[in-house]
Amino acid sequence: MSHILILGGDGYLGWPTAMAFSQEGHEVWVVDNYLRRSLCRDLDVEPLFSTPNLLERVCVWKGVSGKDIHIRIGDCCDYGFLSQVFRECRPEAVIHYAEQPSAPYSMLNQKAANLTLTNNLQSTLNIIWAVHEHAPECHIIKLGTMGEYGTPDIDVEEGWIEIEHKGRRDRFLFPRQASSLYHTTKVQDTDLLWFYVRTWGLRVTDLMQGPVYGLSTEETDLDERLGTFFNYDEIFGTVVNRFVIQAVAGYPLTVYGKGGQTRGYINIKDVLACVELALMSPADAGELRVLNQITETFTVNELAEKVARVGKELGHTVEIKSIENPRKELEEHYYNPTYTGLIELGLKPHYLTDEVVADMFETGIKYKKNIQTERIFRGVKW
Amino acid sequence: MSHILILGGDGYLGWPTAMAFSQEGHEVWVVDNYLRRSLCRDLDVEPLFSTPNLLERVCVWKGVSGKDIHIRIGDCCDYGFLSQVFRECRPEAVIHYAEQPSAPYSMLNQKAANLTLTNNLQSTLNIIWAVHEHAPECHIIKLGTMGEYGTPDIDVEEGWIEIEHKGRRDRFLFPRQASSLYHTTKVQDTDLLWFYVRTWGLRVTDLMQGPVYGLSTEETDLDERLGTFFNYDEIFGTVVNRFVIQAVAGYPLTVYGKGGQTRGYINIKDVLACVELALMSPADAGELRVLNQITETFTVNELAEKVARVGKELGHTVEIKSIENPRKELEEHYYNPTYTGLIELGLKPHYLTDEVVADMFETGIKYKKNIQTERIFRGVKW
Repeated sequence: MSHILILGGDGYLGWPTAMAFSQEGHEVWVVDNYLRRSLCRDLDVEPLFSTPNLLERVCVWKGVSGKDIHIRIGDCCDYGFLSQVFRECRPEAVIHYAEQPSAPYSMLNQKAANLTLTNNLQSTLNIIWAVHEHAPECHIIKLGTMGEYGTPDIDVEEGWIEIEHKGRRDRFLFPRQASSLYHTTKVQDTDLLWFYVRTWGLRVTDLMQGPVYGLSTEETDLDERLGTFFNYDEIFGTVVNRFVIQAVAGYPLTVYGKGGQTRGYINIKDVLACVELALMSPADAGELRVLNQITETFTVNELAEKVARVGKELGHTVEIKSIENPRKELEEHYYNPTYTGLIELGLKPHYLTDEVVADMFETGIKYKKNIQTERIFRGVKW
Repeated sequence: MSHILILGGDGYLGWPTAMAFSQEGHEVWVVDNYLRRSLCRDLDVEPLFSTPNLLERVCVWKGVSGKDIHIRIGDCCDYGFLSQVFRECRPEAVIHYAEQPSAPYSMLNQKAANLTLTNNLQSTLNIIWAVHEHAPECHIIKLGTMGEYGTPDIDVEEGWIEIEHKGRRDRFLFPRQASSLYHTTKVQDTDLLWFYVRTWGLRVTDLMQGPVYGLSTEETDLDERLGTFFNYDEIFGTVVNRFVIQAVAGYPLTVYGKGGQTRGYINIKDVLACVELALMSPADAGELRVLNQITETFTVNELAEKVARVGKELGHTVEIKSIENPRKELEEHYYNPTYTGLIELGLKPHYLTDEVVADMFETGIKYKKNIQTERIFRGVKW
């Protein structure tokens, strides 16, 4: 049993992670400042169904599981607050989800860009300092993104590459060039972590995650009130989640441009498994361990076709519509990422089967009356 | 004649740059929030001689040259302020010196780290947005640092490298891994600029500068009151400048560890020439042009020996003393940087000759009574 601190523990991934570790018997502390809730409210892109606040969630969880989760409401950008949390929790591992996670949000306007940059980097810097000052052996598990690598014309390795140049060799971070400001702040997080890993001997695992889909985990399934945020809008909704809700609502699946954009995807169940695998075999002191956290790759066209096919089998009328790409990105490109590290640690993937998609349809149908189609597309331009 | 906006125009390099461009006949606007002055005062590491504030400097300059320099006192992290400056100035080029420039300062404590990160990245993001919204053709000339590259075991190229990997090839930013938080924020600046260059087609020149020495430029030499900041302390003083003052004060030249640390150096006169060369042949739209702004390389031992030799010839007693290295850095390493780009643009280097060092001694001697030896070493640890 470990003391585990989850920053951003009210979020799409944070809350299911908190319950999973609590269920495993760990002492779990959750921190959040409700930034995601505030942004969704301000932009009128509320999730598919409302979720109780953290205090209420923890009470429901206690009722269902008999277990306590500690919560602290506050901002990880406030170093005094974060230090106090570290002094109380004395974490053996900290899981860092406390970031503004939306690429389109980061491209909305100057204010949103500034919030994304400041929030994501200050929180990361503060976590580094809090670990250094209060819990130097603590394992930092950081959620990175496959988007840091972009779509280079060479194979994407797991974090590192050996470069031979003019007859000499050295090992470097794999080149990173991201395609949104949000993804760029994740590259900058990596810059920060790698510097302090080298300088102070921190233990860091950087989980380079692809877009996540799904909303069902062992714990969310225990009680409807334990469900996680499920955004279906362009700003906070990930693509598979959005497509399913669009299909349920009879709104054409919006493919940007040619639809050949290829990415690695992962089921929310596997996210929890990966974080747990990282926790169970921590990085060494002075190690920045990088693991590519995806289980399979798809083009956007393949995702749209899969959702459309399953939707039609379930009796929905599903149309796919290509629209002008509001983003600056390659619509057809080479993409060959490596993602064996987590499998070697023991991951047993849950793939994007028709059954998984059908389960997501079921949730969509259950909450169909809540779908507000004007939330789906906002046309945020890059 | 161009409209030129100099951000951080009160600084060691900013003020001489402002005068040089004004002398050339450009319409010069200078912005500063006196951050450097405040930090030097707060830490009691005031420069060798006091300098008038910007308003006074501009009045002296008008008296000496007959030319106007416009000033705006404010913080580049305040987007409303910076936007207003851009609307008034309508710059054809913006020179970005508005950063917290000290590596030791960035390592002092959590507050200093946070100030460095926030100041440097918010100012850069705001400049990008101000150019995008108010002056999209404006050429951004950014002061980067050779320290972004660190000391890799392969030759350092000018900004870019082509990587061959498993039979495929692509071109990337040269790997960057810096050795202080300050230098890491410069890596992060590059991440930001490169993203928006690709996305919005900005024109950016990134001048990867080595440590600068000297205080004499054509314009500072016109009147004593036009002199630039000259720090001789461990926090804000660069190594050659420090060593000369230490020699004048009879304080041993402090070599960190083995003294084999090799870096590229540049005379302040050449900094102005390089910035002007960049200005005269702007980057293309959508181009991040990177130029390595150094003219020769030295180990710390070589610098100490050079300063000691010149000092002894001038009749000073100069001791060299190796002390335990307070920094995490390689004390002996491979270092082979390329720096031909600026030469190709027309740079005629001023090298670190004995005469140049002797001139610096002359200034040191002139202000010897101001030297406070307790300012020299503060033991900031990495």
